[in-house]
Amino acid sequence: MAGSPSRAAGRRLQLPLLCLFLQGATAVLFAVFVRYNHKTDAALWHRGNHSNADNEFYFRYPSFQDVHAMVFVGFGFLMVFLQRYGFSSVGFTFLLAAFALQWSTLVQGFLHSFHSGHIHVGVESMINADFCVGAVLISSGALLGKTGPAQLLLMALLEVVLFGINEFVLLHLLGVRVWGGMEWGVGGGQGQPLSQEHGGGGGVLPLHLTAPPQVRDAGGSMTIHTFGAYFGLVLSRVLYRPQLEKSKHRQGSVYHSDLFAMIGTIFLWIFWPSFNSALTALGTGQHQTALNTYYSLAASTLSTFALSALVGEDGRLDMVHIQNAALAGGVVVGTSSEMMLTPFGALAAGFLAGTVSTLGYKFFTPILESKFKVQDTSGVHNLHGMPGVLGALLGVLVAGLATHEAYGDGLERVFPLIAEGQRSATSQAMYQLFGLFVTLMFASVGGGLGAGLLLKLPFLDSPLDSQCYEDQVHWQVPGEHEDEAQRPLRVEEADTQA
Amino acid sequence: MAGSPSRAAGRRLQLPLLCLFLQGATAVLFAVFVRYNHKTDAALWHRGNHSNADNEFYFRYPSFQDVHAMVFVGFGFLMVFLQRYGFSSVGFTFLLAAFALQWSTLVQGFLHSFHSGHIHVGVESMINADFCVGAVLISSGALLGKTGPAQLLLMALLEVVLFGINEFVLLHLLGVRVWGGMEWGVGGGQGQPLSQEHGGGGGVLPLHLTAPPQVRDAGGSMTIHTFGAYFGLVLSRVLYRPQLEKSKHRQGSVYHSDLFAMIGTIFLWIFWPSFNSALTALGTGQHQTALNTYYSLAASTLSTFALSALVGEDGRLDMVHIQNAALAGGVVVGTSSEMMLTPFGALAAGFLAGTVSTLGYKFFTPILESKFKVQDTSGVHNLHGMPGVLGALLGVLVAGLATHEAYGDGLERVFPLIAEGQRSATSQAMYQLFGLFVTLMFASVGGGLGAGLLLKLPFLDSPLDSQCYEDQVHWQVPGEHEDEAQRPLRVEEADTQA
Amino acid sequence: MAGSPSRAAGRRLQLPLLCLFLQGATAVLFAVFVRYNHKTDAALWHRGNHSNADNEFYFRYPSFQDVHAMVFVGFGFLMVFLQRYGFSSVGFTFLLAAFALQWSTLVQGFLHSFHSGHIHVGVESMINADFCVGAVLISSGALLGKTGPAQLLLMALLEVVLFGINEFVLLHLLGVRVWGGMEWGVGGGQGQPLSQEHGGGGGVLPLHLTAPPQVRDAGGSMTIHTFGAYFGLVLSRVLYRPQLEKSKHRQGSVYHSDLFAMIGTIFLWIFWPSFNSALTALGTGQHQTALNTYYSLAASTLSTFALSALVGEDGRLDMVHIQNAALAGGVVVGTSSEMMLTPFGALAAGFLAGTVSTLGYKFFTPILESKFKVQDTSGVHNLHGMPGVLGALLGVLVAGLATHEAYGDGLERVFPLIAEGQRSATSQAMYQLFGLFVTLMFASVGGGLGAGLLLKLPFLDSPLDSQCYEDQVHWQVPGEHEDEAQRPLRVEEADTQA
Repeated sequence: MAGSPSRAAGRRLQLPLLCLFLQGATAVLFAVFVRYNHKTDAALWHRGNHSNADNEFYFRYPSFQDVHAMVFVGFGFLMVFLQRYGFSSVGFTFLLAAFALQWSTLVQGFLHSFHSGHIHVGVESMINADFCVGAVLISSGALLGKTGPAQLLLMALLEVVLFGINEFVLLHLLGVRVWGGMEWGVGGGQGQPLSQEHGGGGGVLPLHLTAPPQVRDAGGSMTIHTFGAYFGLVLSRVLYRPQLEKSKHRQGSVYHSDLFAMIGTIFLWIFWPSFNSALTALGTGQHQTALNTYYSLAASTLSTFALSALVGEDGRLDMVHIQNAALAGGVVVGTSSEMMLTPFGALAAGFLAGTVSTLGYKFFTPILESKFKVQDTSGVHNLHGMPGVLGALLGVLVAGLATHEAYGDGLERVFPLIAEGQRSATSQAMYQLFGLFVTLMFASVGGGLGAGLLLKLPFLDSPLDSQCYEDQVHWQVPGEHEDEAQRPLRVEEADTQA
Repeated sequence: MAGSPSRAAGRRLQLPLLCLFLQGATAVLFAVFVRYNHKTDAALWHRGNHSNADNEFYFRYPSFQDVHAMVFVGFGFLMVFLQRYGFSSVGFTFLLAAFALQWSTLVQGFLHSFHSGHIHVGVESMINADFCVGAVLISSGALLGKTGPAQLLLMALLEVVLFGINEFVLLHLLGVRVWGGMEWGVGGGQGQPLSQEHGGGGGVLPLHLTAPPQVRDAGGSMTIHTFGAYFGLVLSRVLYRPQLEKSKHRQGSVYHSDLFAMIGTIFLWIFWPSFNSALTALGTGQHQTALNTYYSLAASTLSTFALSALVGEDGRLDMVHIQNAALAGGVVVGTSSEMMLTPFGALAAGFLAGTVSTLGYKFFTPILESKFKVQDTSGVHNLHGMPGVLGALLGVLVAGLATHEAYGDGLERVFPLIAEGQRSATSQAMYQLFGLFVTLMFASVGGGLGAGLLLKLPFLDSPLDSQCYEDQVHWQVPGEHEDEAQRPLRVEEADTQA
Repeated sequence: MAGSPSRAAGRRLQLPLLCLFLQGATAVLFAVFVRYNHKTDAALWHRGNHSNADNEFYFRYPSFQDVHAMVFVGFGFLMVFLQRYGFSSVGFTFLLAAFALQWSTLVQGFLHSFHSGHIHVGVESMINADFCVGAVLISSGALLGKTGPAQLLLMALLEVVLFGINEFVLLHLLGVRVWGGMEWGVGGGQGQPLSQEHGGGGGVLPLHLTAPPQVRDAGGSMTIHTFGAYFGLVLSRVLYRPQLEKSKHRQGSVYHSDLFAMIGTIFLWIFWPSFNSALTALGTGQHQTALNTYYSLAASTLSTFALSALVGEDGRLDMVHIQNAALAGGVVVGTSSEMMLTPFGALAAGFLAGTVSTLGYKFFTPILESKFKVQDTSGVHNLHGMPGVLGALLGVLVAGLATHEAYGDGLERVFPLIAEGQRSATSQAMYQLFGLFVTLMFASVGGGLGAGLLLKLPFLDSPLDSQCYEDQVHWQVPGEHEDEAQRPLRVEEADTQA
């Protein structure tokens, strides 16, 4: 039945209808709610008598472009490693990201920059939206090859909402006292994922009460990596396929697909310093965060090569490790790179993350499937899950060591509540730890109950066990060589077997 | 005769002699005319007592680098989709662009920044030159695989001149009153492709009368996309090959050539916000333009996936659509993204462009060839032609709705003639429409008469009908696999058939 | 014996132990010596009462990101041209660079920014470290395919030290008088590879005597390209393999490996203007340097196409030339692009460099191997060696023509000693020439004696003559096609032959 005409007809309509519906609904919500903020709208800006050179655009947009390259080039090509799933890997990443950035502009906007009935957008909403997209793509990495595009869109629909709520809880609800508005100015960036709110609050828009972040997580070790990874892993558990070995022969890479994946790896690696620093405080805040991330990534690269050769058959390196674990250094300093981590601390953290991640690929991924029934296609548990949790714990440690001496005036930027005397460093550390716990809850329950049940809706198009990791299910695929007119339709044969 | 030694000898000399001549002539013209402008030359800059931090370099160069990546990586790899034409696609793009950027520095310089006998160059001339290169590469996309590199260089030689004149007419001649010089300063960018002239006019260089643009087209929906597309399409009509089906077997993609093409697509997509905003007014102007483009592209991606699946055989997606139509959202807001388009307007425009472009690939491209005898290799009519015209019309609409309320002080930047009370919004809209008409005239007549006749010069090296889309005509090509010493010389066989 | 279990066991341990040792030692040195500088550390910065917008981060970081992309994407993929060495090319580049950037942070730090017992780091140390990595990767290009990763790491260990010393000698020792500290400020960048020292010297850190550079080399024609190339070439001479023809069948490219290499070429080409300008003086200094490099690259691209077709078999273009010689325009203006080269001068220099480089590939590389016994895998002599020397000589010429009239106030930035009346332009030219001589000495002696002997240590893992240019020696390599489970282990067969 699976390969029957009725199924094909269903498939023909499911993806386009969902795309059209989601885009239509988003557009209507944009029309009603979304407006330029005062840094984007000339009429509002000039009322404030600011110089054009002070526009936050110039301090954030170059970082945004790097983040944008990571999301679309980095994630897109990193997932091309599968031998017959390249079109889907880069194509569905593209589709998911294009939808999720719009949807998260709305969700984050409602939660964080909703004033007088409108969401106000600017360069920081673009960065925040791309960050949320990052989490969605991390989750999709666990499902890669085993879900159709309509399923992935539904996952994004739910995940973006949960991402926004989790972030809101961490930043605003894990504490009590509400804080007054802050002055606006080039020097007044807030160094946290939602600073557009604070920025907007004190400028030309009607002031409303804003709170400093209760938990710090500038580069998203918790909110992006841990959340995205465990959301995807729990979802993958719910969608467990006991018969997946029917597609085993397509689960590996071929020579050139590994080279394409390295394009993704390298772009993620080089731009990660911009990712972690994109929304930290202007000036020394961005400067230090970028520097820490740069060192951490270098160290994780060396430990990945070391461990990969050490555990590899015959001492040979494994491309999967290099493509992924070398990036763990960026994940592990996501929380702490804006803090006084020190260059040595960055190296040590990166080294640890590369080690844990490589060992995870070698030893834990097989157990994850056999014992925990989690089929983690691209190993997000190793690249984002464990390093994300480690990064959150590192944040606990570094926050607990914060002193006035070490941070100077910077303490007010990174830990305003400590600077104001409302919290001790130890208490901040406890809040950070609680933030990790909350994130794991949201990710697991959301991924499991919500998304899991949603994606199992029986009418949703999902590839057969024998058709996983195969582009032809969703794409018109040309032959591999010039002489083949078209790759033979092996999928259809598989269909009839099923 | 085609494959004979005499022809080979001719081929040996045509390209190098043309390259040497063009480079030599360009260098001589540079020696005589081109000088650093006051933002580039320390001696001139310091006379003006400016701070180094105010140098326009810092406000434009990051955008320039994104545009540069789009031109060379984006266009270069987007055209690699042909299975046996990868070397030529990326190589000839490289060659054409390297020549055209020099030549357009001269042409645009003569028309727009010629003072006291010299052309003055700086970061804005680099951006303007790269913009002109964009138009040339769009045209070459229609001819891809059917013309030799010498023909393409001659096309660029003519097209750059016509591009410059068309742009000059739109910006300066479609109106009457000449306007006084503007103050220089960080806040004084002019938000239009030729602002270095105005900037230069009021600074340290001898002042000369400058006019505000008569027609707005910051991201080039008209001047770049419409012009480039119809120039190429008319040229392709003139060079129509009735026997092209002899090369039909090489006209499609193979699996990995489609993945290479996606590198081009993604880099074009992520950096398009920088393209449209590279020369808009500093501050809110660049900020808003980037934001609008970001939203428009997201929407065109969703509509492209929706339509591609809807019209695809068996509901399957077509890589050609994803590679191209998803980018139409950037084209369609080229004129209006610096205006008060609103975020909703950007989504709606992008959605429409993706839809039109995808349907164009599916239904109109075959008709274009069969009925209109236009062989449009990479579908520039769908990606640049129709979305460019739509973008110009959208500009007409949005310009016609311009009010003091909506733009505030920004009105003087975007529509100085309206702000000064010299034009009504409706009148500005009519000028915009007239600009589209002028552009179509220049492109068609220039592409048809000029370039068409030039490229048909009988002694010019052009591939045989049986040798189109084939790298070996121009390149020493290694085998596809490690075991082949060299790909067999099928071209030569084809030669003898001819 | 070569393929025996004991050898495999040795291989298993050599790389990981070296990685772990180097990373461990680096981390300890970082812990003891490396600290944030005053632009990175909030506590130090705020003591200086600076605005966040003035942080040097905003004037250097976008350039850094471009340089970073060149090092990792550019060099990494440029070397993927070999048909069966893609994993090693991009992987070992990654490993080498990740180690060398840490190690050069230490070495350059000790030599140039060591105050009160600490090395102070910030965005300029990241750029300087990446520059040094560039030199190391250039050297590795000469050895590509003939050395194991442990050998390459040892090479980097030594080369980074010699690079640092050579740079120190050129910038500081080739002269006598010691100069007072300079004021710090946005306008006070020093326009030379080591400006963090001077910046740091006058700010909040304890002042120490600093000297203006004795020899100018902003983009590293001497310190990076000449040094890196001749270091690698002499090393390749010492490691000469008379039996290398055993691996000849793997020495060429295949169709798709050439396309991957073009990714490297294009990213190097587009970002080279940022490379040369990354550390030049702020404002007009960076502006002019970027512009000159842009023109030079365009001209070298045209001359490369011209010469490649002229000397090519049957007039056909050779991908090797396009991939490499087109970049020579960036190398040749490395010294002079921050000087008053003029746009015409940039075109002429680029044209010459492209010509020399292409002819070098065609005629000199074979002689280099047959006569001089230098096996230069990726032709670094043609891309970096000759153009680097030409660039140094061009620097001699342009420095010798420096006048107060031409440079205005800029003279103090580019040639402070001439501006202060301590040197004539002719004398500066002589110093520049002497700098080239010193560089060639350091590179040759260092590469020959030091690195050469080190890399010949008998216990070091090095591929057999029959196993060169082969990924399987170091990597677990999947098959080329979906149907092969694993590429057959041809290496092992080769082993037994040996």
